[in-house]
Amino acid sequence: LTSSGNKSAPRRIYHLTLAYKGTPFLGWQRQPNGPTVQEHLETALARFWKRPVIVHGSGRTDTGVHAHAQTAHFTEEPRFPPATLQAGLNHSLPPEIRITACRLAPANFHARFSAIGKEYEYWIENAPVASPFHLDLRWHLPRPLNLPALTEALKLFEGTHDFASFTSNPGYERTNTIRTIHRAQIQKSGPLIRIRVTGNGFLFRMVRNLVGATVKVGHGRLTLEELSQILAARKRSGAPPSAPAHGLYLHRVYYDESTLQRRLNRA
Amino acid sequence: LTSSGNKSAPRRIYHLTLAYKGTPFLGWQRQPNGPTVQEHLETALARFWKRPVIVHGSGRTDTGVHAHAQTAHFTEEPRFPPATLQAGLNHSLPPEIRITACRLAPANFHARFSAIGKEYEYWIENAPVASPFHLDLRWHLPRPLNLPALTEALKLFEGTHDFASFTSNPGYERTNTIRTIHRAQIQKSGPLIRIRVTGNGFLFRMVRNLVGATVKVGHGRLTLEELSQILAARKRSGAPPSAPAHGLYLHRVYYDESTLQRRLNRA
Repeated sequence: LTSSGNKSAPRRIYHLTLAYKGTPFLGWQRQPNGPTVQEHLETALARFWKRPVIVHGSGRTDTGVHAHAQTAHFTEEPRFPPATLQAGLNHSLPPEIRITACRLAPANFHARFSAIGKEYEYWIENAPVASPFHLDLRWHLPRPLNLPALTEALKLFEGTHDFASFTSNPGYERTNTIRTIHRAQIQKSGPLIRIRVTGNGFLFRMVRNLVGATVKVGHGRLTLEELSQILAARKRSGAPPSAPAHGLYLHRVYYDESTLQRRLNRA
Repeated sequence: LTSSGNKSAPRRIYHLTLAYKGTPFLGWQRQPNGPTVQEHLETALARFWKRPVIVHGSGRTDTGVHAHAQTAHFTEEPRFPPATLQAGLNHSLPPEIRITACRLAPANFHARFSAIGKEYEYWIENAPVASPFHLDLRWHLPRPLNLPALTEALKLFEGTHDFASFTSNPGYERTNTIRTIHRAQIQKSGPLIRIRVTGNGFLFRMVRNLVGATVKVGHGRLTLEELSQILAARKRSGAPPSAPAHGLYLHRVYYDESTLQRRLNRA
């Protein structure tokens, strides 16, 4: 508690990038009811530093949601070179969680507050018979989706809007629900349809709610006009249901304006 | 037991194509120690015909081995149109087994004896960190593989050879171990290396044994000359170990010479 004689090095910020399959976890955030990604990570880190290490993620992901590139940071004495720590963590962690990058960050870095944008992908398998190889990894929709209709629906979301109709936060009326979606697009390869949404931030369940509504349009059960009205209504009741968790991937977190702009300028 | 009054229709042959993820099954063939694909399929079929139905596969697959397109047949009264049966089976079967095609076959069709060729794929993930999304679906090899060396190694197997060095059948010396490999090639896309082997037939564990040896060459631990000697030795002892089951896929079964030739003539 007082300045002791130990020669502890000044603390540094470790910045981690993680891929995880969300299926066996109750989401990112540590909680008492079962295993989470944060808990596994903090347990593994505590083995290295021989004391509790608190990790800060770029944000939460729900139960069953995956990450291609979640980011997190923690502050500790830099006892381990990043490459050594990465290998050690990957040895300790369950195989469903992988550290894909580890580096030391500048002193003002914060995984959540330094983020300037995020990108999600939602993976749909649009085929009469579901592949047995992607059971927890894609939302299987046997009925054909109209791709131009999906594209048009996603275009409605681009720009700055009040997305109150697309958050599942029950207290949303008392919060700021305005967000900017820089781009919302689809890519199709075979039966796989990937919806990619890039924005400055996302409300609770926003991507899954946007996808749920978009799919209604793609199935001809909702017109673009109706979707537009739902967006304008700014209330969750009356909006189509959420798409399931297991198709969603946190794809990328942006910390640098020029990286984000390069991404958006690519076709 | 005698010609009864029932007006049972003449039996027909149903020809099924199946995709399955091998992870939860003790292989294809029915056995007392645990669930197999054949057992699940026969159980589902018995519900339709209200009596035991025996299924014949194109061949066995080992525990953990996957199939993109296993084939099987059974002989029964054609009470159900193929499309109805396919939908009903997919409703009954676990999601790791999918019927991808169902048709009525000519009277002389046999899933095993009518086959004129087979194709396997072996999937390798060659990247420093394994993806958490393909844990039971690819063999993870962190050390870089030399692709030209892999290609050269596979070329050695093309043609008609005695593959005794590459079967795990303990009684192989008393059997015919000569097979023809029409083609053995690799395809790379990102970290995924797919080895595809097409032949007139395969010995027990042959593809996994060929891949185990090929990877040694790709890692520079075995020369082409040594591999050639192993093939010529015609004995299993001294050959490199088998590649693991979870990277292997039964990719296709050929019943028609012109279909096979078209495949082989494609680049």
